[in-house]
Amino acid sequence: MRFVDACLGRPVDTTPLWVMRQAGRYLPEYRALRTQADFLGLCRTPELAAEATLQPMRRYALDASIIFSDILIPVQAMGVPVEFRPEPHLPAPVRTRNDVARLQTPDPWRDLGFVMDAIGRVRAALEPDRGLIGFVGAPFTLAAYLVEGGGSKDFMRLKGFMHRDPEGFDDLLARIGDAIAPFLAAQIDAGACAVQLFDTWAGQLPPEDFRRFALPAARSVIERVRRPGVPVIYFVNGAAPYLGDLRSSGADVLGIDFRVDLGHAIERLGPDVVVQGNLDPSVLLGPAEAIEARAAAIVARGRAARGHVFNLGHGIHKDTPPEAMTVLVEAVHRAGAR
Amino acid sequence: MRFVDACLGRPVDTTPLWVMRQAGRYLPEYRALRTQADFLGLCRTPELAAEATLQPMRRYALDASIIFSDILIPVQAMGVPVEFRPEPHLPAPVRTRNDVARLQTPDPWRDLGFVMDAIGRVRAALEPDRGLIGFVGAPFTLAAYLVEGGGSKDFMRLKGFMHRDPEGFDDLLARIGDAIAPFLAAQIDAGACAVQLFDTWAGQLPPEDFRRFALPAARSVIERVRRPGVPVIYFVNGAAPYLGDLRSSGADVLGIDFRVDLGHAIERLGPDVVVQGNLDPSVLLGPAEAIEARAAAIVARGRAARGHVFNLGHGIHKDTPPEAMTVLVEAVHRAGAR
Repeated sequence: MRFVDACLGRPVDTTPLWVMRQAGRYLPEYRALRTQADFLGLCRTPELAAEATLQPMRRYALDASIIFSDILIPVQAMGVPVEFRPEPHLPAPVRTRNDVARLQTPDPWRDLGFVMDAIGRVRAALEPDRGLIGFVGAPFTLAAYLVEGGGSKDFMRLKGFMHRDPEGFDDLLARIGDAIAPFLAAQIDAGACAVQLFDTWAGQLPPEDFRRFALPAARSVIERVRRPGVPVIYFVNGAAPYLGDLRSSGADVLGIDFRVDLGHAIERLGPDVVVQGNLDPSVLLGPAEAIEARAAAIVARGRAARGHVFNLGHGIHKDTPPEAMTVLVEAVHRAGAR
Repeated sequence: MRFVDACLGRPVDTTPLWVMRQAGRYLPEYRALRTQADFLGLCRTPELAAEATLQPMRRYALDASIIFSDILIPVQAMGVPVEFRPEPHLPAPVRTRNDVARLQTPDPWRDLGFVMDAIGRVRAALEPDRGLIGFVGAPFTLAAYLVEGGGSKDFMRLKGFMHRDPEGFDDLLARIGDAIAPFLAAQIDAGACAVQLFDTWAGQLPPEDFRRFALPAARSVIERVRRPGVPVIYFVNGAAPYLGDLRSSGADVLGIDFRVDLGHAIERLGPDVVVQGNLDPSVLLGPAEAIEARAAAIVARGRAARGHVFNLGHGIHKDTPPEAMTVLVEAVHRAGAR
């Protein structure tokens, strides 16, 4: 499979691509589906989640799908309610050692079985040469939501906890890891051919704190999830300051956000790295020629690595014209041809 | 003056420091002052702005003050109303070439004289060995607010404009530059011994767009403002991806945000650089020993540069205990002693 081969650094006929948040609001058929259920309802109803996952696969020649879900899905199963308004809101955040001690370790098949059910449905419906990716939020990012009770501009509650009680914070990260490692493994068992760990907020840390907290917590999950032939992708949003550290995550593929020059990233990471990324999603709001030129430039930079999976450097934006994705998919496959 | 000497790379007896947003809500005397006027009222009333500026100077042995104002202050004088709720809100954003063409070029003394008046008052009240910094938002950052109508998570309106009409966007940046260069010059004439350009949102760009838009727009302002003995500081929030480009801004001092390792930044920028930064403000929420250790580590890294002005790597947070600043100031001066 072109997608898995590229992830593992094997030869491919052209650069594969998928797009973060490719099943989403920029597609009219997704907006129609959303009239049947709210966001969480879609995530929790396997036939609807499978349908949302498959929508972009029908429309575009994408090389992989990503299961329709949310990085926060396991949090509810840890005993912490999550609402989407549409931004995530956690009315009972985790702010003390006592709160941490009360966190539950979910059984993925019992408590999150709807995700595995959706994965099974997608895998059955999808052509065998196209990938299906499972995912979850990385420990530091889930800790950010748990402590802040939602998103944040500056993550001062999170970092305040981290600086005042580093051992308590370690415990929080460890408990999150214990929840998500089996969940990722279950997604693989259910049919995912790769898994991605999203560290959306790790980029808010000074490098020394990234190395002390976010990176070892992610590494521990990656170690427990790794199995032969099933690539693990680690995506850090805002990875530029940590390029010297990311290899030690143990991930097969490093997702690179759009703020980094991909050529520079490969230089820092070393030529035997496999990278994923990293077009700025806003380019899809511009003219087709610009999309083609930028995509080709990124594909060319990616050739310096052992493997390259093309992606956006952040989730696709809801105002993206669906035609822009057609332009992008063709441009990447054309530019990437060996 | 220790602060200006460090900015110009001259020998100093110890590392000077000031703190972004040092006149602000973490100080009880500031919160008392705010009962007399709202935020914009403070900015626009020279005696109150001067008082807010001087408050942290009375409490702490800081080496420089920064005039109490806002990066968006010139925008209103360009004919675009700004409200603070408390986040900036621009009810009539700039979204088309016609909107850009209607922007006015303010006369700083006529339209923004209250800032120069406040600077004169602070300069008269402050000891001559302590600095006073003027400032404004950099062109790209002001363009971000003008186009988005406020802050944004992803700046898609801004970037959409930039990608669809790069020449129109150049015109917007040029008009902002024409507004702010004379305003910075007037702040120097009024008594500021240095000026800082805040590029709060430039870090949201891929490096090629930073080089194409944000950097030349900042450089053009810096060129027009430079005069002998008056350092210009350029602060890019999220500068890690552009370390190879920042020198060409022409600034005397490069402000480095907290996400970057200062030693790595100096390596990339070259040993003849002068840097400012870069403690994570959240460290001030932790124990005194951690503040001292982190401050000393940053001071030690700064010794690799030609000059180093200590600062936080982002504005101080309102929940910071005022005593933490006392610890910080003493730690920096002690660790920095030659």
